Amino acid sequence: MVVIHHVSNVLGSMLPIEEIVTWSKRVGAKVLVDACQSVPHMPVDVQKLGADFLVASSHKMCGPTGVGFMHSTFEMLSTMEPFLGGGEMIADVFNDKSTYAEPPSRFEAGTPAIGETIGFGAAIDYLSCIGMDQIHEYEKELATYLYESLLSVPNVRIYGPAPSQTDHRAPLCSFNVDNVHATDIAEILDLQHSVAIRSGHHCAQILHRNLGINASARASLYFYNTKEEVDVFIHALKDTIDFLTSQH
Amino acid sequence: MVVIHHVSNVLGSMLPIEEIVTWSKRVGAKVLVDACQSVPHMPVDVQKLGADFLVASSHKMCGPTGVGFMHSTFEMLSTMEPFLGGGEMIADVFNDKSTYAEPPSRFEAGTPAIGETIGFGAAIDYLSCIGMDQIHEYEKELATYLYESLLSVPNVRIYGPAPSQTDHRAPLCSFNVDNVHATDIAEILDLQHSVAIRSGHHCAQILHRNLGINASARASLYFYNTKEEVDVFIHALKDTIDFLTSQH
Repeated sequence: MVVIHHVSNVLGSMLPIEEIVTWSKRVGAKVLVDACQSVPHMPVDVQKLGADFLVASSHKMCGPTGVGFMHSTFEMLSTMEPFLGGGEMIADVFNDKSTYAEPPSRFEAGTPAIGETIGFGAAIDYLSCIGMDQIHEYEKELATYLYESLLSVPNVRIYGPAPSQTDHRAPLCSFNVDNVHATDIAEILDLQHSVAIRSGHHCAQILHRNLGINASARASLYFYNTKEEVDVFIHALKDTIDFLTSQH
Repeated sequence: MVVIHHVSNVLGSMLPIEEIVTWSKRVGAKVLVDACQSVPHMPVDVQKLGADFLVASSHKMCGPTGVGFMHSTFEMLSTMEPFLGGGEMIADVFNDKSTYAEPPSRFEAGTPAIGETIGFGAAIDYLSCIGMDQIHEYEKELATYLYESLLSVPNVRIYGPAPSQTDHRAPLCSFNVDNVHATDIAEILDLQHSVAIRSGHHCAQILHRNLGINASARASLYFYNTKEEVDVFIHALKDTIDFLTSQH
């Protein structure tokens, strides 16, 4: 099984899923794509990507937490055993064996999170109503603006490709500032400027180790953000760096 | 592993958990108690029961669906491997191995259903505020009233012990009516009388097979129900039986 992201939550770069699917099929491997960072931000054609499985989370697309989806085919799911037991996933129960419901029920054991699922549906309708193409176009502009603004701040190192070097750059920037810890930056931005960014390894410890760092700070945007908000962030970041480095 | 219910969702009877725990420990077996039908209805002392694991569902205790709890000890959980991967359950990730967070985080992979959990907490506060003792006392009365009222309907067979034969009888009755299918009863009660009961095997296929039946109808009550509502149900049931048997 080849398990890969579609868009990196740290680097903002996009993997060539169709090529990876081709290579994987050649050696008989299945492919699962984590599309949590792509599906909320652009039109994604699951048929065209050709992966066996594609997953995304509701809470990264304006929906409630604790719910998401997995896309696959009925044929593929039919070959798989359930991994959780409970109501709805069962067909017949005997003392010595059980038979299972058809997919997708087979994988939906127990009473589901009904409210969350309805909320997720409403979030998808909301995004579809705005238009995934629209969201994508607008975010491309935001992504470039964020990257270039951040690049102009002295002593900042941004991870991942420049928007000009690539077909796709997600509207996020992971970065570090020379001689300042990422967590200090995030803390001060929050406490003194009410700007919320994230710091840490972003669930990508191996990547951070390969980059030779323990942590990075990450500013990420969605379609409801504006260039003016990027300006506020950059201004606050400069103040924060001054504050942290003048204390040395 | 001995996996048992605390209160049967079909028979309304209660298992002697403390004895079962003693027998199980004697042979080195762990015990998991499904307390979905007891925790919402009475005070349950998990320490006194002594089971290794005890679980219950939020949606059976006025809370949202898709969430519940498992009670165990830190020592027990520390011996167990996680069964789902994701954020929060991990400690350190390397190319060839991972280490896990301490329990309970180890078993809480990914972003949880935050809203559902808060809702569940509010439901528990609500029940605690009414008082589990109060709820239990009131439901005992309701249980006996339901049982005796239903027993007075001709051609009805009730499954499980009579309230007078046992220390505990849950406020529910699974039953069948001679020569009428349980599903027909539930359907007509719903369509013609707006009385909602359940019919089927209630996720207890082996029990139904042992009782020599395919299905049963089940009326179940909670603390918000009244004796007057039981009267409405009994009246509607008599009408339903007349309706269904006069068509033969």
